[in-house]
Amino acid sequence: MTLTGEFIKALGEVCEVLRDESVLSMDPGVDPANLGAALVARPVSTHEVQAIVRLCSAHLVSMVTHGGRTGLAGGAVSRPGQLVIDMRAMNKVGLPSLEAGCIEVEAGATLQAVQDACATVGCSPGIDLAARGTATIGGMISTNAGGMEAFRCGVMRHRVLGLEAVLADGTLLADMTRVGKVNEGLDVKHLLIGGEGKIGIVTRAVLKLAPLEKASATALVGFSSAAQAVAAFHLMHKAGGLLRAEVMWRAYAETTAQQCGLEAVPRACAGHVLVLFEVAGNSFDEARAALEDQLSQVGANDGLMDGVIAQSGQQAADFWRIREDSFAVERVWPGGLWYDITVPLDGLDGYAAGLESKIAALPGQHFLSMMGHLGDGNLHITVAAAGGQVADKLAVESAVLDGLKTSGGSISAEHGIGLDKCPALAVHGDPGRLAAGRLIAAALDPFGLMNPGKMYN
Amino acid sequence: MTLTGEFIKALGEVCEVLRDESVLSMDPGVDPANLGAALVARPVSTHEVQAIVRLCSAHLVSMVTHGGRTGLAGGAVSRPGQLVIDMRAMNKVGLPSLEAGCIEVEAGATLQAVQDACATVGCSPGIDLAARGTATIGGMISTNAGGMEAFRCGVMRHRVLGLEAVLADGTLLADMTRVGKVNEGLDVKHLLIGGEGKIGIVTRAVLKLAPLEKASATALVGFSSAAQAVAAFHLMHKAGGLLRAEVMWRAYAETTAQQCGLEAVPRACAGHVLVLFEVAGNSFDEARAALEDQLSQVGANDGLMDGVIAQSGQQAADFWRIREDSFAVERVWPGGLWYDITVPLDGLDGYAAGLESKIAALPGQHFLSMMGHLGDGNLHITVAAAGGQVADKLAVESAVLDGLKTSGGSISAEHGIGLDKCPALAVHGDPGRLAAGRLIAAALDPFGLMNPGKMYN
Repeated sequence: MTLTGEFIKALGEVCEVLRDESVLSMDPGVDPANLGAALVARPVSTHEVQAIVRLCSAHLVSMVTHGGRTGLAGGAVSRPGQLVIDMRAMNKVGLPSLEAGCIEVEAGATLQAVQDACATVGCSPGIDLAARGTATIGGMISTNAGGMEAFRCGVMRHRVLGLEAVLADGTLLADMTRVGKVNEGLDVKHLLIGGEGKIGIVTRAVLKLAPLEKASATALVGFSSAAQAVAAFHLMHKAGGLLRAEVMWRAYAETTAQQCGLEAVPRACAGHVLVLFEVAGNSFDEARAALEDQLSQVGANDGLMDGVIAQSGQQAADFWRIREDSFAVERVWPGGLWYDITVPLDGLDGYAAGLESKIAALPGQHFLSMMGHLGDGNLHITVAAAGGQVADKLAVESAVLDGLKTSGGSISAEHGIGLDKCPALAVHGDPGRLAAGRLIAAALDPFGLMNPGKMYN
Repeated sequence: MTLTGEFIKALGEVCEVLRDESVLSMDPGVDPANLGAALVARPVSTHEVQAIVRLCSAHLVSMVTHGGRTGLAGGAVSRPGQLVIDMRAMNKVGLPSLEAGCIEVEAGATLQAVQDACATVGCSPGIDLAARGTATIGGMISTNAGGMEAFRCGVMRHRVLGLEAVLADGTLLADMTRVGKVNEGLDVKHLLIGGEGKIGIVTRAVLKLAPLEKASATALVGFSSAAQAVAAFHLMHKAGGLLRAEVMWRAYAETTAQQCGLEAVPRACAGHVLVLFEVAGNSFDEARAALEDQLSQVGANDGLMDGVIAQSGQQAADFWRIREDSFAVERVWPGGLWYDITVPLDGLDGYAAGLESKIAALPGQHFLSMMGHLGDGNLHITVAAAGGQVADKLAVESAVLDGLKTSGGSISAEHGIGLDKCPALAVHGDPGRLAAGRLIAAALDPFGLMNPGKMYN
């Protein structure tokens, strides 16, 4: 497919268009190939998105939709001859309604902007992740993002009440419901959620509000194994008020801490598996008291090795920097293989211990980093080789992914499939789900113009 | 389509088959036309379901899947020439795993059986409705059931982690994930949830567990308007521990109470709008104290008119009988028109007051009953005419349904579309969602053999 002058001219009549030099000066996002198309449409309204999609459909031009480009699976990569549709100019955030429990936003709004709007009335969108300042709501819907609050508030799928999207033929899905109970025919919006732009382009959404804690206290706690960390999670979650439980194996925490100049923090906390627990309260003192009480119960029951409760906002922020600066791993161990998996909590300990053994048994020296969202059993894993590329990628992939599906886990938790995970999905995905998904994609997008080559290859 | 002898013989070789007399002696369920097909297959395994579906596909026989037949929208109605697939013999309930937070069940298990299994380890499936003893998990998934706990635990869609289903061509969707974070291609199971048997037959599921309260206390509280009831709901939900908040307008409560011999109960509670609030605690006394405390705050802020806290389990059960015996309305006011709608909570008061005015303004005398799930804005509405059928059905439907969609509400909350609501869906449903839904159904079921005539007409 080539972009004809006629198409580009017509496109310029329906929306702002960036070409070549202006595109190349834009931030490339996580993947340098994101802007390979070198032609970017920047719609400001749903109407413009419809016009763009109809034009692409008429000219058989492939579309790659962009949000904040914080995705880690190559879902936004584009090639010459394709059109990038950058949704970030559609970034209006409505007023949150406490009475109805929802907020209406445009797809290009960042998570941070929505969190800020919600905070003005003492609530939150019930989802949070480290890329909050850049990730857009549309991108988070399209990848069904998860993050740190999912164990109690659900993933993006559970936060979306209503959705507006432009489908491949320009049809408008106008399903901007503001309530939780709706049964009005096949629920097409749940294909767009996690649909990675294969079914249509998300333009607006209604998100469900969650309460915002008044104050919280954070502790960094060390355990000798994941089994102990899981037991502590269950005890604390049941006790009430647990906001976050982020797990870091020691190798991850020491690597990021060193990059942040905080190497003393993990060193002061014994244990192979470190967990950041954050507990809510009406004041910091109340939250700290609850956290101390819960940790003393954990200590009595579940073999807690060590723990530090942050005594100030600054100390808590330091703890969180160690958790959130995950790119430090790539800086220290470049060229590593990244995975994003979920293990049911009754199998987490066995999985993690087994993976450590398998990686240690590979020829040559490897670095294994694991961290993630404890309550969801969601681990972000990096395997790197000392001094360069991993030699036996298949062996690493097999060590990380084999057996996950039969245990009821997932080979792709919250980053999406994009380009990078297509091969793994083809091997490990349920054949019935893949076959039905392909039939559906073909029915809605018969010319395969929406984010081609992503998700299914 | 006629059922050939060849088909019936082949069917008998793959599963138990009931015909004519034996079918007619079965319980008809809510709708007497449910067993119109007079031919029922009763599979005991997923393998048998696959064989049945393949046989139907080869012989072009239409399939109508049955669970507990408690649906109220005609979704299980069958006709001669069709095959009923009764899933109730597939009713195994697995052991709940507290550590993984889930339970695996077959589609024909009743909600009560699953609740009982969960209760043995102090948890629940996080969903409850009055038909719990008969409604099956498969039927509840296929109608995306809601019920009384949805405002805090979500609807069925939010309880399903994994799903197994047989698609129209016999393909097995084997997506029995046991975790909450999964992104592995278009999420086809979310079409089966609320799919009313149009996309496939649900055979098994993994459900997410919720905590089970140790004890609770219930109050029947009267308000002068829905606005006051909504304000009280928000105050109590924010305070924590609110398990249920069921709303009954006085006409409903007096009708069902009289049928239960409990007419003194609503009479003792002043107010136009009655709400059953149930609050959790570690003991009944603790729960009652929390309830009293919250109601005193409501009384100070939000115009509570009257209230009675149940002092015994028997008294609480009486309160709940008044709420749950909804069929009493049909007995007293036969031939009424039933609706199941959702209104965003910021519009509930205006909607209810407006509907009362519109029904009162109709020629002739009408009876209006409203009750439902306050936290979800989900109302079950009956409009009956004194002494017989409603004369102007269109005027009633317009009074109940017009404007719901533009306010962000729903014309079909939790009972599904079935046969009965097809006309309303065609008028009020989002055209984009309907068009895409039809394309998807046609792609997966090109011969239209799965529950034909339901949902889309």
